[in-house]
Amino acid sequence: MTIAISRTDTSHTGHFLHTFFYPESVAVVGATNNQDVFAFNLLSNLVNLKFPGKVYPVNPNAREVCGLQAYPDVTSIEGGIDLAVIAVAARRVPAVVRDCVAKKVKAVSIISGGFSETGEDGKRVQAEIRQMLKGNGIRAIGPNALSPINTANSFVISFNPVERFKKGGLSFIFQSGLYEPRLAWLFDTFGLRLSKLVDLGNKMDVTELDALDYLSRDPDTKVIAMHMESIAGDGRAFLQLLRETTHKKPVVVLKSGRTPAGARAASSHTGAIIRSSDAVYDVALRQAGAIRVANLEEFFDLAKAFEFQPPLKGNRIMLATLSGGEGVMASDAAYASGFVMARWTPASLAKLRTIFPGFEISVNPFDLGVSSQFHPFDRVYQTILETYLEDPDMDCLVLHLVTYFHLNEPDRLVKLGTEAVRRGKHIACWVVDVARENPQVIQQLEAGGVPIYTSAERAIRALGALWKWGKG
Amino acid sequence: MTIAISRTDTSHTGHFLHTFFYPESVAVVGATNNQDVFAFNLLSNLVNLKFPGKVYPVNPNAREVCGLQAYPDVTSIEGGIDLAVIAVAARRVPAVVRDCVAKKVKAVSIISGGFSETGEDGKRVQAEIRQMLKGNGIRAIGPNALSPINTANSFVISFNPVERFKKGGLSFIFQSGLYEPRLAWLFDTFGLRLSKLVDLGNKMDVTELDALDYLSRDPDTKVIAMHMESIAGDGRAFLQLLRETTHKKPVVVLKSGRTPAGARAASSHTGAIIRSSDAVYDVALRQAGAIRVANLEEFFDLAKAFEFQPPLKGNRIMLATLSGGEGVMASDAAYASGFVMARWTPASLAKLRTIFPGFEISVNPFDLGVSSQFHPFDRVYQTILETYLEDPDMDCLVLHLVTYFHLNEPDRLVKLGTEAVRRGKHIACWVVDVARENPQVIQQLEAGGVPIYTSAERAIRALGALWKWGKG
Repeated sequence: MTIAISRTDTSHTGHFLHTFFYPESVAVVGATNNQDVFAFNLLSNLVNLKFPGKVYPVNPNAREVCGLQAYPDVTSIEGGIDLAVIAVAARRVPAVVRDCVAKKVKAVSIISGGFSETGEDGKRVQAEIRQMLKGNGIRAIGPNALSPINTANSFVISFNPVERFKKGGLSFIFQSGLYEPRLAWLFDTFGLRLSKLVDLGNKMDVTELDALDYLSRDPDTKVIAMHMESIAGDGRAFLQLLRETTHKKPVVVLKSGRTPAGARAASSHTGAIIRSSDAVYDVALRQAGAIRVANLEEFFDLAKAFEFQPPLKGNRIMLATLSGGEGVMASDAAYASGFVMARWTPASLAKLRTIFPGFEISVNPFDLGVSSQFHPFDRVYQTILETYLEDPDMDCLVLHLVTYFHLNEPDRLVKLGTEAVRRGKHIACWVVDVARENPQVIQQLEAGGVPIYTSAERAIRALGALWKWGKG
Repeated sequence: MTIAISRTDTSHTGHFLHTFFYPESVAVVGATNNQDVFAFNLLSNLVNLKFPGKVYPVNPNAREVCGLQAYPDVTSIEGGIDLAVIAVAARRVPAVVRDCVAKKVKAVSIISGGFSETGEDGKRVQAEIRQMLKGNGIRAIGPNALSPINTANSFVISFNPVERFKKGGLSFIFQSGLYEPRLAWLFDTFGLRLSKLVDLGNKMDVTELDALDYLSRDPDTKVIAMHMESIAGDGRAFLQLLRETTHKKPVVVLKSGRTPAGARAASSHTGAIIRSSDAVYDVALRQAGAIRVANLEEFFDLAKAFEFQPPLKGNRIMLATLSGGEGVMASDAAYASGFVMARWTPASLAKLRTIFPGFEISVNPFDLGVSSQFHPFDRVYQTILETYLEDPDMDCLVLHLVTYFHLNEPDRLVKLGTEAVRRGKHIACWVVDVARENPQVIQQLEAGGVPIYTSAERAIRALGALWKWGKG
């Protein structure tokens, strides 16, 4: 395994992975007009999203694919090729790689599976491919990997139709295509704001070390979220790089294969061997300053939180829920995440009294439900937000949002939420069911920088990670 | 606090709470035509859902409400009243209760808040109301509670518009209206199949002991899911009853107010005092045979699991995910929940080979994604299900569902899932995003008894609870 960190050129443009994210010419080998197979979307996404580079479909049985002239093989293409994306059956990959060598392509991304993860035969073929590429100085991602995505130039290699995405500062490293079935959901419903994504698969050549090194340098990447099942090599170089990276930007890590059953499954699907116990990984990752998460849900939640908001400087939390019972559970969650319940100043309390139900109530957690039985919903939300904006004794607000009914002034709500973000006052909202909410309000709030989660616990856990990161 | 367990009549019809769930005549005090306030739905739900009993709106300022003749007060109603539902401002409640006493109503459900949860004045008024009712043998739920719901007779008291529900064997006890903002979601998207629901609020008279006693006897209730923040009295009678109940049916318990912050919040919203530490509750609940959950998400997941499926007799699990990486995480989750990875019989393996990608792959977890790059999605799913149906060495199957594309024979998928349930073979499915799936397939599968969750971890955790319950 070559560990290629150039200590002389530390720019991202000087890193070999830059070609993978910013290719000027791409050959898609295995491009097809058959809409019933996953591979169809490899080319159609590039066409639909108007990727500005040159794109060459390679398919010996088609004259054109998705309206672009097709070529029978890589060597038939006239122009030079920065990146060849290979998605053909495993047995055909060696021949395609030979063509890539002959064509002097700069880099290859091998999507096809069927190599080291399948046993001795597959391992042998993979080693041959690696040797062929290495001998000719061609770097390779995969095989058994769907890579890459770069929103800056709409370069999206995916098996799913991608119609839109939100650009942002979050970059992912995956060791598997597990994000694929949820790509549209992540972009649309969940609202992630993406910079780059790389799936490493069998890590024949490019490893998490390379990916982390590039993203660590990349100025567009503010937050790195990293899924891994194994570490290449003995891990020391990786942990050293991780430590350096976490001094610059947060790195959220989902290390799966924690249990004997999980480790066996990891070994069988990428061919990697899990050498260390989970406890060893746990200590090493934490010592390197990474934010380790327990599962995929927490992975995406924290990735979102760190991309949306700066670290929290204090731990005084304010909770507002639609029922007192939910306030109890939110208080439990806040306590568990290291928060203390914030106290309103006397001036704030005077403002809040205007939305009291006519009797004394708890003001943290605040029961929006009892208040809104006596005052218009809009006024209840506006009063909470306006008061929070002016209160100096609170570090964050978690607000239960109900946008689908009884809300006559949604614009004002959006404006107040956005204003909180502008002033650096942390806020996170949650809804019971995204699909039932007013999508415009949700989208406008997120566009204004207010992250929305699907439960109080999840919103609080995300803010809790920002607080742990903030206190260092 | 009166603990009213009749040891002579142990039928549910002989329990005083039966009148609350099956009233033949209901007065809704505070019924209104104003669609902008929550209280509007109290009456409109009964009208829209065609509750078969007599319904009397009480509103001094209206001649009719939702098309029904309105009465200025309870005493003006000609017929007898089984249940008076009271939803007026706190200061007006004592007068309404006096009317109820004069009218000799059998029972009252007080929705209004503003009593013991607000301080000394509120406590005093609540005590007066209690005395008035008790002296006249009238039982009361609340105040500060939204109750009850009984799907058997479409008797739905809710602040939310309820258009439909699925009838089933699940009954809830809540100590707060926290389910209210998610009622439509629970019924529609989440797919719960409900029998009864009672919210206890301040527990002035009716406590969790009464509710548990009734639901324990109720033949329509197969599973009880109970949210609580405090236990009335010293708890011994409750724990004794809980122990007896869990010998008859599963009881899932969400006890919140676990932390100092949560306990304080609980005390402020119902006026109850949390006396014992969470660890004491934990031991006591487990000793009584209850299934304790950590949060609301797990509460609803396990409630659903126990209502959908019988306990699991074995712990050999089969996992099928759309990516190998997800299979690793599912394997970790399965291990953590006490499962062992099931092994296919040689006969099963021979069948599975027909959907291999052309090379050897792991068969548990099974990678649906790699298989479906080489075979039609329908055939991959059908083969997995058909093989599972015939394999004697597997106790449960967790299947990652993708129903929104590449599925040409959804009926066959639904039929196979339903067939598994019919044969007592446990199966649970999960989808990334319910909103993006084919709603017909999802609904038909759930109608056939196949529960659908929103992540592998959640599906596995639910099955894990069925296994813990099954092994006793």
